[in-house]
Amino acid sequence: MGEKRDYHMSPEEFRHWGYQTIDWLVDYRQKVEEFPVLSQVEPGDIRAKLPSNAPQQGESFAEILADIDRIIMPGITHWQSPNFFGFFPAGASAPSILGELMSSGLGVLGFLWATSPACTELETHVLDWLIDMLGLPDHFKSSTGGGGVLQDTACSAAIVSVIAAREQKKADINRLVAYTSTEAHSSLEKAVRISGLRPENLRLIDIDHHYAMSPDRLEQAIKADLQAGLIPCYLAGTVGTTSSNAIDPLTRLGAIAQKYDLWFHVDGAMSGTAALCPELRWIHQGVELADSYCFNPHKWMMTNFDCNCFYVRDRLKLTNALSIMPEYLKNEATDSGKVIDYRDWQLPLSRRFKSLKLWFVIRHYGIEGLQHYVRKHVALAKEFAQWVKLDPAFKLVVNPPLNLVCFRHQGGDLINQEILNRINESGTMYLTSTKLDQKLTLRMAIGQAETERENVKLAWKLIRSVAEKIINDNDFTCQISTEKAA
Amino acid sequence: MGEKRDYHMSPEEFRHWGYQTIDWLVDYRQKVEEFPVLSQVEPGDIRAKLPSNAPQQGESFAEILADIDRIIMPGITHWQSPNFFGFFPAGASAPSILGELMSSGLGVLGFLWATSPACTELETHVLDWLIDMLGLPDHFKSSTGGGGVLQDTACSAAIVSVIAAREQKKADINRLVAYTSTEAHSSLEKAVRISGLRPENLRLIDIDHHYAMSPDRLEQAIKADLQAGLIPCYLAGTVGTTSSNAIDPLTRLGAIAQKYDLWFHVDGAMSGTAALCPELRWIHQGVELADSYCFNPHKWMMTNFDCNCFYVRDRLKLTNALSIMPEYLKNEATDSGKVIDYRDWQLPLSRRFKSLKLWFVIRHYGIEGLQHYVRKHVALAKEFAQWVKLDPAFKLVVNPPLNLVCFRHQGGDLINQEILNRINESGTMYLTSTKLDQKLTLRMAIGQAETERENVKLAWKLIRSVAEKIINDNDFTCQISTEKAA
Ligand SMILES: Cc1ncc(COP(=O)(O)O)c(C=O)c1O
Ligand SMILES: Cc1ncc(COP(=O)(O)O)c(C=O)c1O
Repeated sequence: MGEKRDYHMSPEEFRHWGYQTIDWLVDYRQKVEEFPVLSQVEPGDIRAKLPSNAPQQGESFAEILADIDRIIMPGITHWQSPNFFGFFPAGASAPSILGELMSSGLGVLGFLWATSPACTELETHVLDWLIDMLGLPDHFKSSTGGGGVLQDTACSAAIVSVIAAREQKKADINRLVAYTSTEAHSSLEKAVRISGLRPENLRLIDIDHHYAMSPDRLEQAIKADLQAGLIPCYLAGTVGTTSSNAIDPLTRLGAIAQKYDLWFHVDGAMSGTAALCPELRWIHQGVELADSYCFNPHKWMMTNFDCNCFYVRDRLKLTNALSIMPEYLKNEATDSGKVIDYRDWQLPLSRRFKSLKLWFVIRHYGIEGLQHYVRKHVALAKEFAQWVKLDPAFKLVVNPPLNLVCFRHQGGDLINQEILNRINESGTMYLTSTKLDQKLTLRMAIGQAETERENVKLAWKLIRSVAEKIINDNDFTCQISTEKAA
Repeated sequence: MGEKRDYHMSPEEFRHWGYQTIDWLVDYRQKVEEFPVLSQVEPGDIRAKLPSNAPQQGESFAEILADIDRIIMPGITHWQSPNFFGFFPAGASAPSILGELMSSGLGVLGFLWATSPACTELETHVLDWLIDMLGLPDHFKSSTGGGGVLQDTACSAAIVSVIAAREQKKADINRLVAYTSTEAHSSLEKAVRISGLRPENLRLIDIDHHYAMSPDRLEQAIKADLQAGLIPCYLAGTVGTTSSNAIDPLTRLGAIAQKYDLWFHVDGAMSGTAALCPELRWIHQGVELADSYCFNPHKWMMTNFDCNCFYVRDRLKLTNALSIMPEYLKNEATDSGKVIDYRDWQLPLSRRFKSLKLWFVIRHYGIEGLQHYVRKHVALAKEFAQWVKLDPAFKLVVNPPLNLVCFRHQGGDLINQEILNRINESGTMYLTSTKLDQKLTLRMAIGQAETERENVKLAWKLIRSVAEKIINDNDFTCQISTEKAA
């Protein structure tokens, strides 16, 4: 080792650049509204600014930070802007960022209890807390045969639930059938495909006029499959669908799942967080019939991505499906049977100390603080919906149950698409769309942590004025009539 | 919104507690050797210190930080200690921590190009850099039909590769067969199970006397399966197996994969990083025959967990297997075909800005700095192996190709187990074990960023003295003879 040369940051450099990075972020958060919400770059713009080879010698951290402003910022779509109303919100509060920082700095892997007991035990504990915080059934608690675990995403939660369902059936995989609604998130379809079930054995069940799954149609489909010699295996209900925030009728779905012996998974990705407020717990009615349930603190509960809370009623069904014990992982604690090894509850082996940030968030905000933002966003959505209702040029597509408002201009798809394009290109705010009843529908998701009534008011003003401009824009309306005629 | 109450951290609070968290980590890193490397708590100890309910009102961040010391630290196994020689190392350098911090603070999701173009383009770019840095085949570059993507882990890389292989075959899943060696990582078995192939259709091929997969045995197995009417589908080779760091003969395996039309995946989880050094690139001989390849910067390349680089030769085979395009994700950029949407390259939909930390690491260290640590660790392992070889009480089980030394005391399994237990209970260092040739074998993995020759020397001294004490401990040796007699 003779001529010792050290390339690491020294402790004092780490401190210095750590402070600088924090300063950069504090500054960014304060001026986030100055940036166009949707990045305005063209494909290839960012790469064009990057050197084609990695540097042979190390560079100074000052240069790296400067390149964040110079190269990266133009290519950022600002999910943390209070004017971001697209998709669903992506929480990233200061306490969660510091929790993640602590986790990166400790740098432990928690695949076995023994590889950092605190990583496993804090996770179990905080997931138990959340059961009481959300009023979820006690049989999801770790003191029962059930339990909770952090997955990265609702997608992975869907995958592991399909796999547990598949293994439980012990039948020919080609005959297994899975059910969800036409409005369920695409991750359900992906989960079914990943787990090896036949894609044609996924039934997307029709919805009612509230865009929620029809239990009658579900039962019909199950009966038809049984008659055809297939094996119904898995049902996923949604609490708060992506397109319209519809709440599936869990009580009826759960009864059908029990009757036909299906694994019943409930996906509350964004909307589950609402259950922090007792007056909104009706969304979970029937969840006590679920075999598994999940929601994402990384959406509406102030926690930075990734962070999905996943619960099972019978942990053995999960671990039997996923456990493999090679020689190099054998250890006393596991042999004793007294500990949880979370590697058997998830797809990968390794895992980081993710519960730290959730713990930081819950402790910083308290139940009261978290409830405050849910109530605020729900109230803002109701108010926005009221404005839409009162404007004859627009149609409110559903009465928002929570914080997502679905609406459209009465002028048809092309006009709605043009509204969307012009608004997003303006950079003032960001909105996304979906299709409901085959019609293009604008989605206004109100859940970014810093969104105030003022932002929502300005958003509505902009939407109306853009719509008016389009209607009065002869070129555009001519183009529409030509396209319609063609 | 009348009585506006804000529960967020103010910018000045964020700055203050951000600095404090950085200070805490700088301090932790400096005194990490003062803690017992393996946590000494008993099951339940950590939970016992946590209140049974979440707080109703928020708490001060000062209390939260204090509880890190009071509650969390006793339950940490110190992966960042220079005396951590267990499993494989978990990199977490200061630049990577700051990259992760930047990513959390920006809080963007990169599932579509449009949801933050920089997130996608920087990832593509840095993964291209790494191809040249490691001397990997050009057909993995994004400018070809192939390309790279960040997965969380080598486990997920294994899963998506099995799924791509499965979909490519378009055959009855029940007849598909996968092959890997008895020494492959358990994640291969898990990947095969997750993707719905029959567990009994996984062939664990025998190894040669270097613990590397035997190509002859592989071909025999394939032939037998073909004769039995099964469909060989997938082969995984390993560059640096977990137990002994064996390097599978990729050239011969690749030729067999081509002959029988199997998807050939190469798992270089830890050892791939060695290819940063031209003199060690022999480990990848034959990787040009692979359909997919992965390695983990989160192990030996200074990057905090999670960070797996995954490459495919034909990106369409991957995206055809994983792509689903629902209405609410439709957007102009995707329609144009000019951009990459990484959600179709991985299991979940959502993804964070993970390439930032990899970019920070490569730029901070430079190729030269990263090579320095690989060379240093390999040299230390060779030196350690030499000490073992010269000590008649111990046996060197393999000549270490890189940075993992496998060895055992000549006294048999019970003595080796006792050495392991006493060393780990001492807290001075941490070591794990495996079985090679059915015999308990100690694994000394040298790759923690701060490990110096002094740490390795002390480790060897401790191992020898513990072994001697055990041999001279009459109680213990009596116990062994009794157990052997029974
Ligand atoms: C209902 C629903 N389920 C699942 C998901 C997937 O979310 P993620 O990948 O962030 O976990 C979403 C995302 O918006 C969703 O709305
Ligand atoms: C050869 C090999 N493959 C895969 C893995 C899985 O690693 P991870 O889950 O960290 O990606 C490991 C872990 O040690 C390994 O040694």
